[in-house]
Amino acid sequence: MVGGGNGAFIGAVHRMAASLDGDIELVCGAFSANEQSSMRYGQSLNLDPARCYGSYQQMFIEEAKLPSSQKMDFVVVVTPNHLHFPVAKMALEAGFHVLSDKPATFDLTQALLLEALVEKSGRLYGLTHTYTGYPLIKQAKHLVKQTDFGRVTKVVVEYSQGWLAVDDDNKQAQWRLDPQRSGMSCCMGDIGVHAANLAEYVSGSDITAICADLTASKTGRVLDDDGSVLLQFNNGAKGVLLASQVAVGDENNLTLRVYGEHQSLQWSQLDPNTLLLKSAVHPTQVIRTGMASLCTQAKMATRLPSGHPEGYIEAFANIYRNFTMQIRAFEQGDATALHNFDIPDISDAVRGMAFIEHVVAASQSTQKWHPISLVPTPRSI
Amino acid sequence: MVGGGNGAFIGAVHRMAASLDGDIELVCGAFSANEQSSMRYGQSLNLDPARCYGSYQQMFIEEAKLPSSQKMDFVVVVTPNHLHFPVAKMALEAGFHVLSDKPATFDLTQALLLEALVEKSGRLYGLTHTYTGYPLIKQAKHLVKQTDFGRVTKVVVEYSQGWLAVDDDNKQAQWRLDPQRSGMSCCMGDIGVHAANLAEYVSGSDITAICADLTASKTGRVLDDDGSVLLQFNNGAKGVLLASQVAVGDENNLTLRVYGEHQSLQWSQLDPNTLLLKSAVHPTQVIRTGMASLCTQAKMATRLPSGHPEGYIEAFANIYRNFTMQIRAFEQGDATALHNFDIPDISDAVRGMAFIEHVVAASQSTQKWHPISLVPTPRSI
Amino acid sequence: MVGGGNGAFIGAVHRMAASLDGDIELVCGAFSANEQSSMRYGQSLNLDPARCYGSYQQMFIEEAKLPSSQKMDFVVVVTPNHLHFPVAKMALEAGFHVLSDKPATFDLTQALLLEALVEKSGRLYGLTHTYTGYPLIKQAKHLVKQTDFGRVTKVVVEYSQGWLAVDDDNKQAQWRLDPQRSGMSCCMGDIGVHAANLAEYVSGSDITAICADLTASKTGRVLDDDGSVLLQFNNGAKGVLLASQVAVGDENNLTLRVYGEHQSLQWSQLDPNTLLLKSAVHPTQVIRTGMASLCTQAKMATRLPSGHPEGYIEAFANIYRNFTMQIRAFEQGDATALHNFDIPDISDAVRGMAFIEHVVAASQSTQKWHPISLVPTPRSI
Amino acid sequence: MVGGGNGAFIGAVHRMAASLDGDIELVCGAFSANEQSSMRYGQSLNLDPARCYGSYQQMFIEEAKLPSSQKMDFVVVVTPNHLHFPVAKMALEAGFHVLSDKPATFDLTQALLLEALVEKSGRLYGLTHTYTGYPLIKQAKHLVKQTDFGRVTKVVVEYSQGWLAVDDDNKQAQWRLDPQRSGMSCCMGDIGVHAANLAEYVSGSDITAICADLTASKTGRVLDDDGSVLLQFNNGAKGVLLASQVAVGDENNLTLRVYGEHQSLQWSQLDPNTLLLKSAVHPTQVIRTGMASLCTQAKMATRLPSGHPEGYIEAFANIYRNFTMQIRAFEQGDATALHNFDIPDISDAVRGMAFIEHVVAASQSTQKWHPISLVPTPRSI
Repeated sequence: MVGGGNGAFIGAVHRMAASLDGDIELVCGAFSANEQSSMRYGQSLNLDPARCYGSYQQMFIEEAKLPSSQKMDFVVVVTPNHLHFPVAKMALEAGFHVLSDKPATFDLTQALLLEALVEKSGRLYGLTHTYTGYPLIKQAKHLVKQTDFGRVTKVVVEYSQGWLAVDDDNKQAQWRLDPQRSGMSCCMGDIGVHAANLAEYVSGSDITAICADLTASKTGRVLDDDGSVLLQFNNGAKGVLLASQVAVGDENNLTLRVYGEHQSLQWSQLDPNTLLLKSAVHPTQVIRTGMASLCTQAKMATRLPSGHPEGYIEAFANIYRNFTMQIRAFEQGDATALHNFDIPDISDAVRGMAFIEHVVAASQSTQKWHPISLVPTPRSI
Repeated sequence: MVGGGNGAFIGAVHRMAASLDGDIELVCGAFSANEQSSMRYGQSLNLDPARCYGSYQQMFIEEAKLPSSQKMDFVVVVTPNHLHFPVAKMALEAGFHVLSDKPATFDLTQALLLEALVEKSGRLYGLTHTYTGYPLIKQAKHLVKQTDFGRVTKVVVEYSQGWLAVDDDNKQAQWRLDPQRSGMSCCMGDIGVHAANLAEYVSGSDITAICADLTASKTGRVLDDDGSVLLQFNNGAKGVLLASQVAVGDENNLTLRVYGEHQSLQWSQLDPNTLLLKSAVHPTQVIRTGMASLCTQAKMATRLPSGHPEGYIEAFANIYRNFTMQIRAFEQGDATALHNFDIPDISDAVRGMAFIEHVVAASQSTQKWHPISLVPTPRSI
Repeated sequence: MVGGGNGAFIGAVHRMAASLDGDIELVCGAFSANEQSSMRYGQSLNLDPARCYGSYQQMFIEEAKLPSSQKMDFVVVVTPNHLHFPVAKMALEAGFHVLSDKPATFDLTQALLLEALVEKSGRLYGLTHTYTGYPLIKQAKHLVKQTDFGRVTKVVVEYSQGWLAVDDDNKQAQWRLDPQRSGMSCCMGDIGVHAANLAEYVSGSDITAICADLTASKTGRVLDDDGSVLLQFNNGAKGVLLASQVAVGDENNLTLRVYGEHQSLQWSQLDPNTLLLKSAVHPTQVIRTGMASLCTQAKMATRLPSGHPEGYIEAFANIYRNFTMQIRAFEQGDATALHNFDIPDISDAVRGMAFIEHVVAASQSTQKWHPISLVPTPRSI
Repeated sequence: MVGGGNGAFIGAVHRMAASLDGDIELVCGAFSANEQSSMRYGQSLNLDPARCYGSYQQMFIEEAKLPSSQKMDFVVVVTPNHLHFPVAKMALEAGFHVLSDKPATFDLTQALLLEALVEKSGRLYGLTHTYTGYPLIKQAKHLVKQTDFGRVTKVVVEYSQGWLAVDDDNKQAQWRLDPQRSGMSCCMGDIGVHAANLAEYVSGSDITAICADLTASKTGRVLDDDGSVLLQFNNGAKGVLLASQVAVGDENNLTLRVYGEHQSLQWSQLDPNTLLLKSAVHPTQVIRTGMASLCTQAKMATRLPSGHPEGYIEAFANIYRNFTMQIRAFEQGDATALHNFDIPDISDAVRGMAFIEHVVAASQSTQKWHPISLVPTPRSI
């Protein structure tokens, strides 16, 4: 693990998610840019002191020297955004598979470089778009593909939080709002990209054009903390994406609705074990995690009988589980392992960075529609 | 009553809303363009046959001749959209107050003419923006004005229905989708304008600019049945308005969220007797119709103890009740009656038509932002 | 109307419910035991002063003299409980149909007398068990009868309010807690009997034995304000009935669950337009007021398209509507009118009083099970 | 770990709960009565083959011989009910702390023996009443103790499942319904006891008397699969406990309501991160997991920011976490460790068995009220 030391929320979540199924063991880490902190933190996690490293560079060098039965199987990147790329790059070059927090890189240019590096390295790369780990998100993706659903006509996705309406000065707020560490977007880079990924994952369609209105709601902020985006998809569907970090009183309200010609779906992270399947002619069906009739991917992503609620950590653990399964298949020479696993990969990483970069450009434009391409925008902030 | 004969949904709703409080009596009507139908329908409502008229023109002429103790006190217009203006015009000219279904007229030009007519006639004009009749919508408007709420920063309003995803050929669908009878917009003219009105009513701010993406989702339709609109308000707030008649499986899902600097509000017509008041620091409060702490307007709009659900007809009846109170005050010479009653009036009528006309224009534009003015767009469809 | 004058909540509700469909007109009333009050109140309702009576006795005498085209069609009894019987008795004897508030009488002995009177009078008698007027309660009754549901195995019904946890000294609380006016039970007589009626109405089974634990939660109260009752039904089903007027913070939380061998149903007055149909093998279905697939009785009880919420007044109006239809059929000589209409009648009145009387007796007993019979208990309070 | 091998649902849940925080490692086990199965299963969990034992007896003997730095710190008992006592007994006698699944023993007599054994052994004993691990259950317990709440007047607790309405012949159903393995009660022993424990934990009061009606709903079943129980608490409160395994369509619907003189609380496992705090005079407050204002115990039991749902495994992990903390304190000589940790202990174990035994006796009695004592009933089934 690189990053995730003292005070870092997401590092602890990664460790819980990784350990949940008893199949992954944290063996080494560079938890902080400060060598002493990193060492101390690693030992607080009961790690072998010899494998608590003062820097990620050192870790990759040392770990690469270990015999394969001992060395770590993959690297997890949980640093602030600006370090995602250099850490992932060095890990891949040192021969390690990489599982990275999103956004994958600092900007689209880096993401394209990373894509080339992944290909060249022959290593696996996964991205923790956590919300795709929920069982009923997998079921939603499954249902959208059925003929009963009809063509997708509209997608409404929203991720709203309120914490930046209050807080300017905690550690988290500081780096999120700092373009040097966060990148060209705060709200869209942190949560908007999750919403975009979820919309594409479930609808099975790609966003091709956007119309964006981003806002920095407080004086002195240079990055967006709120944004509304109109969407066009490659199958002709329309959509709306709302993201906010200043939606006072909202927690982590991620909601998704997908409308088809004959049916529609509604899901919310506030009640993640319920998926509503609506229809023009039949009563709405309440689909629940754990039901016997769910699709294979949804069932595999479920650990409990229905009615015992599963949550965010379990969804996160599903990302880890699928990545581990992919690594096992890959290491055993399964040629399809690169593409056949239900895990966000380098192409999602590139698409995510394209979304972030173009949503910022679109917001600055006076033209209504802005195409999303994989070509970097002329300039970054 | 003009219109609202056989098979017309909204006419019956008007009659129930009007009669609920036992204070309004239907005394005459021109229920259909067909004289026989109108007569038959009126008699089925137990009206005096002499006051079941074959046309609205005839009705205004005959009723105007009656002594004031006998003649009707006001006219209700519940015809298809293209007749709203001529009926209201003639009623005003015949000296009757008018309560009209929305949209007020066929286009903005007519709305401005109507505004002049209302002023000239010295009669009262009300518009049935039903949803502003809900007690908790009044409470929401009240709470937004409190200093605890802070400046409004964002408004998200949505009205989604699914009935036009299925139905092309019932009577209702046919005239709604016909530009000759419905006007230049189907979805925005029918329900989007309700959402816009509700957003302005509760937020206390005016929409000043929009960015719109309207869709006619089925082959052969010339009017929109779905649309997404980004909003700017005159107080600096941003917003999003979603409206759809092809949201498969949705019924009449009207939802409103208003975010302020310190608090936010959430309301849905599906559970109209609950209003959530959120805060950055306190637990969300569940405000309920009937609570003793509600504001005066909300209490006046409530008929039952809390926990006995009130619904759409009661909200509609509040429009009637307030219009009746306004008429009484006006007839008794209360000089403030023109402006002091909580009832949508001719200025809402004009703003509504401006919204409809400009949202269509904005959708056709390649520019992102389009100002909403009270100047008619160059052409209608 | 007898009763329902100044300050009486339920009288106003009756008038709204009666007037909603424009088919019933209030023509006369004895609104108060005080002649002046009654006259004044009647005139405030725009009644003909000649038909605002100083006492119900006088009203029945005078109205009976009128020609049938002028005299009232039926009497509504909305007095405190202890007057229900004498008023209904005199009305029947004067030849009027009666629609009475519940509980029908002061005790079971009176209810049996009333039953004999109804039969002898040849007049119609209806009881306003309002909650049976909700469309989805009718749909629930319909679904329970389908073979897919299986035999009913368990019924859980609850009616909880909190108002008597606070209030001892308003007018309503005073008579409710006074055995001279309220009868032998406060909570069970006021709301428990509604819950029992609802359980029997929907399940289609009769409660045959009970085990009861009633509580007077505040010092000085002699009547129950809370109670829990175990139930046995004549089809072998078990059940639980909870009722409370001291459930702090609850409004009018009436909920019903009926379990069958293969399916189950869940309904709550807080969201009366939603009925959940659960199954052992299929996803829960969300049945909604207004759906095209509802049964005839549910559709007849519906006034709006789905998604426009209907509430308590509409449910109440359905009681009035069905009673009016029954009267019309009866007056036109339809021999089946006495039994073929979906309206609580004298047998429900007797069953309700038996429930109240026996639940009090059961609570005082040290034996677990107490049969519900139509034989009065040895003594009343 | 003893038990929890192939096909056992709860063993896997224990392992996930134990590993979640990275602080507990499974080091040995006797997973099955069959030696081969046990060995194979242990190795599938990546255990050292030398520590996969063929029987629990063998495990305790061998592990006791290991140096304290190597031997297991505590034993987890996840066998069917009839083995809970002999396994716990031998573990305690071998010097190991014990964390046991509930019900603690086969009957109350065994529970009292176990209590003596725990005391004599000087070892710690914990019981996995999982639901007390939810953060908002801890917050509920905290709020009930505040003076604002007032004296507890009523507790309504329900645990309803539907799986035994369908399934007679899976492995789980077979042993649950078999009195030789399950004990004298199926439904009350499996889930009713959880509900009783939760009611006592949150209310801070003990159940002192019950009136019970248990049902075996299917032909051939000798144990209850459904039951309703009226409750009396030692503080004078009343209550109702409903439990069912044949509530068709219900999943694991555990709900709790606690009413006080001034406030009340409502919680459901279906939405475990929401706790409603109601009041007679203020709007209901929506208390959420992760809020800064929660009590210490609730905060300690929380791993994520509010809005990222936590579920059953996290609640279960809180039981493990608290038991581990208790062991650490105890091993470090903290004299208060026996009593000062928020973890169900041997006294809960005894109370639970007393509840089960007396609820069965109460159901068979013709008397209404049956005291709950810690004296075993005359005979068991």
